[in-house]
Amino acid sequence: MKEIRLFCPATIANLSCGFDVLGLCLDTIGDEMVVRKIVEKGIRISKIVGADLPFETEKNVAGVAAMAMVSGLDLDFGFEIDIYKNIKAGSGIGSSAASASGIVFGINELLGKPFSIKDLVPFAMEGEKLASGSAHADNVAPALLGGFVLIRSYNPLDIIRIESPEKLYATVIHPQIELKTSDARSVLKQNVTLKQAVIQCGNLGGLISGLYTEDYDLIGRSLQDEIVEPLRSMLIPGFDSVKTKALEAGALGGGISGSGPSIFALSKGKHTAEKVAKAMSKVYDEMNLKYEIHVSKINAGGIKTIKILN
Amino acid sequence: MKEIRLFCPATIANLSCGFDVLGLCLDTIGDEMVVRKIVEKGIRISKIVGADLPFETEKNVAGVAAMAMVSGLDLDFGFEIDIYKNIKAGSGIGSSAASASGIVFGINELLGKPFSIKDLVPFAMEGEKLASGSAHADNVAPALLGGFVLIRSYNPLDIIRIESPEKLYATVIHPQIELKTSDARSVLKQNVTLKQAVIQCGNLGGLISGLYTEDYDLIGRSLQDEIVEPLRSMLIPGFDSVKTKALEAGALGGGISGSGPSIFALSKGKHTAEKVAKAMSKVYDEMNLKYEIHVSKINAGGIKTIKILN
Repeated sequence: MKEIRLFCPATIANLSCGFDVLGLCLDTIGDEMVVRKIVEKGIRISKIVGADLPFETEKNVAGVAAMAMVSGLDLDFGFEIDIYKNIKAGSGIGSSAASASGIVFGINELLGKPFSIKDLVPFAMEGEKLASGSAHADNVAPALLGGFVLIRSYNPLDIIRIESPEKLYATVIHPQIELKTSDARSVLKQNVTLKQAVIQCGNLGGLISGLYTEDYDLIGRSLQDEIVEPLRSMLIPGFDSVKTKALEAGALGGGISGSGPSIFALSKGKHTAEKVAKAMSKVYDEMNLKYEIHVSKINAGGIKTIKILN
Repeated sequence: MKEIRLFCPATIANLSCGFDVLGLCLDTIGDEMVVRKIVEKGIRISKIVGADLPFETEKNVAGVAAMAMVSGLDLDFGFEIDIYKNIKAGSGIGSSAASASGIVFGINELLGKPFSIKDLVPFAMEGEKLASGSAHADNVAPALLGGFVLIRSYNPLDIIRIESPEKLYATVIHPQIELKTSDARSVLKQNVTLKQAVIQCGNLGGLISGLYTEDYDLIGRSLQDEIVEPLRSMLIPGFDSVKTKALEAGALGGGISGSGPSIFALSKGKHTAEKVAKAMSKVYDEMNLKYEIHVSKINAGGIKTIKILN
């Protein structure tokens, strides 16, 4: 294999009560990436379309993830990357994760899969570290593995993939405002009450149970974030209205995607997810706020190979 | 049906990372209880064997639970209860819960099952409220439903039963010391760090996943309590040694049962659970500390009917 073209999906991390531990993979929005073997050693970013990102390997999320992966291998050739960005940086649906996970997946394919998909996660996390300062896994792991992914532990890294119920759809709305990660972080409190922690655990346990038993109502009842949403949602214009309208339109539940400003809702069935999309859109239409909106089945497979050149 | 004789099982609540939200049902230790219809209205406790407990209905856990149940019903007869206690009060394996859940189960049977088993939980919780001041469900719900039970929420009450993996066994050791509930409570801190809450959520999610997928290793890795065990374990003599020896003997993991002083370990298979029991016992033997020890399969069915008199 000389060259591979990939679809690198968007992802939702910080999934309500799953703050910092649970993410999911989307199917209808993502970047594309071409990775090809080249004679020259190392990693070269040759093309970036759709975003203003650095070409220097050590300053580029994909470049850093790729270097983390190949630096331990004794290769007498290198890789060239073309990046076609569709996921906007700062949207809260895993733009950097799509690049970081795409490149390591692509290189692994070109090398004949020396690594398992799970083993690729730590390399992709290095890209996240460049992007946000923290090597978090709750976007890159769902992007690589598909479905829902629980990060049980970082030390050691312990990643649990959970199959999505068949009829589960996500609706994600991205208001076109800038929400700085530093602001999204600064509103968090370092301490929570024991009671809040217990409620969060109860809901997370319910959500995980609902995913395994395909109990859509339980998934909905469990999508409550006691800790982060009350603080961060204040930074997102119209959050309460968007969420309320989504629920009224039939969504099971929802919350902030990543650290925002995107807002997600989960629904049973595509039809409901589309009704929810209309209801969410209407709120921003009435506020005269620009937005992008996506309806997506949960992506069971993660990154997809579009084309191979042998 | 005139009379029913029941086995009312012991339970483990506060299951490590499942503090305040997850409990399980034991099979080899429990009380017995006889409930019979009588002409006289109301609830009469006629016999208590094995414990020094009050006979006054309103001061007895079973009496209070029974009253909570029948007070809403327009019955022209009453119930008499004989209680045969095996579970020691204050042991941390749900002594009051066995009584509270036994009586409501028994009355429901004698009435021809007007309530579902889940509907009985709130009545039994009233007994817990008398016993400990808080109407918690994480002992009575596993006693009534069997298996593992997650309390997703108290407001509204939302109880999720989770089937136990087939080969899962519990070993529980009860050191014969008195640990006051007030002391066990006073060591808890009202606040935890956000990081602790996230770690606890990750582990609880892992534990729930492990139960659904019968992944014994994942169950073991997830049995870590970041919040309560470090504080409460200091009140239990030899806790660290008992836990360490249990793990060395092959236990998947363990922790404090309820609010102590009992210590539990979970193992894959009876043989390992028995080896673990020996290892745990040895610690207290060497400390010259008296104890009781139990090895039990997880009880899938909860309360059992021993005998019916029609």
